[in-house]
Amino acid sequence: MNKTIDFYFDFSSPYSYFAANKIDAIADANGRSVNWKPILLGPVFKATGGASPISFPQKGPYSVHDCARMARFMDLSWKMPDPFPIFSVAAARAFYWVNDKDPDQARLLAKSLFHRLFGEGQDITSEEAVGDVASALHVDRDELRAGMADPEIKQRLKDETAQAIERGVFGAPYFFVDGEGFWGSDRMWMVKKWLQRGGW
Amino acid sequence: MNKTIDFYFDFSSPYSYFAANKIDAIADANGRSVNWKPILLGPVFKATGGASPISFPQKGPYSVHDCARMARFMDLSWKMPDPFPIFSVAAARAFYWVNDKDPDQARLLAKSLFHRLFGEGQDITSEEAVGDVASALHVDRDELRAGMADPEIKQRLKDETAQAIERGVFGAPYFFVDGEGFWGSDRMWMVKKWLQRGGW
Repeated sequence: MNKTIDFYFDFSSPYSYFAANKIDAIADANGRSVNWKPILLGPVFKATGGASPISFPQKGPYSVHDCARMARFMDLSWKMPDPFPIFSVAAARAFYWVNDKDPDQARLLAKSLFHRLFGEGQDITSEEAVGDVASALHVDRDELRAGMADPEIKQRLKDETAQAIERGVFGAPYFFVDGEGFWGSDRMWMVKKWLQRGGW
Repeated sequence: MNKTIDFYFDFSSPYSYFAANKIDAIADANGRSVNWKPILLGPVFKATGGASPISFPQKGPYSVHDCARMARFMDLSWKMPDPFPIFSVAAARAFYWVNDKDPDQARLLAKSLFHRLFGEGQDITSEEAVGDVASALHVDRDELRAGMADPEIKQRLKDETAQAIERGVFGAPYFFVDGEGFWGSDRMWMVKKWLQRGGW
């Protein structure tokens, strides 16, 4: 069986930000590694009838408040970006391009992008902004720009999103552990128990 | 400030079942008491644009599976009722009627009703079924039947549901602690931390 944990997330998902700051530690403590897979929630919601919590009049403000509270309890910096949700295509493409060369660096890039968006409330929508974050990690800006425009990278993001939908993903973050799906940053305690017990 | 925790739930909500089996212990350990308030999610969803997870093609089966898993991790018995969701008006009215006389007994009744529905997969829709569960707790069946038909009790359920909506409730379980709202059985760890820290 594949011992890797698949971690599906969207850079525009605040609960993915929380998960991104915790899932590796949970995996490491249990002898597992994590396969990070950015996807686009837009097509996922379209395929599954879902919607961002932010789009509901009561659940929206609650979620914003819940995120601030969650960040406080997790000791993470937090600033709600405005506008929100954001267009996360550039960030996701950059991730896959870097990931092909160096998964560790791609993970650092993902955490930096998440931090810039939800820790500092700064935009990561444009290729410029993504380039800024990547440059700070010594990724070559011109190569990255070419990589983000590569048809293969563009297709990769589509394929990963399509595959996620096929596997039953309807929101983010979403984890697969030993073939078992877990939805939400608030199921990470269960992922941990699953790993510790080796199942149910 | 009101030191009581308001616990809004619907007897037809499996995550409310999980919360009902845990919230009193969390409150007790922190010197608080819990005010149990059954409501009807139908009007709540109508007012807030929400829907039961079960109504979505992917989230529905996931939720059913997640409930079975949650019950296993919480050491609670579990059997998914069919049909589901169920009509929880009789159960909620019975609760309020018993609660006016004896809140402890009402809580026992609530737990017994939840157990019958989600622990045994048996119906609690009819007044008959609710009467069966109540009788086992030595509630007089005839008095209960009259109580459930009392216009004041009927109105109480409507009022509590309307008040919940006014307070921002958009799903169940939903908790208010020191005026702070928490949605979902997966926020009980946060309720606990809130109580321990006296806030954020």
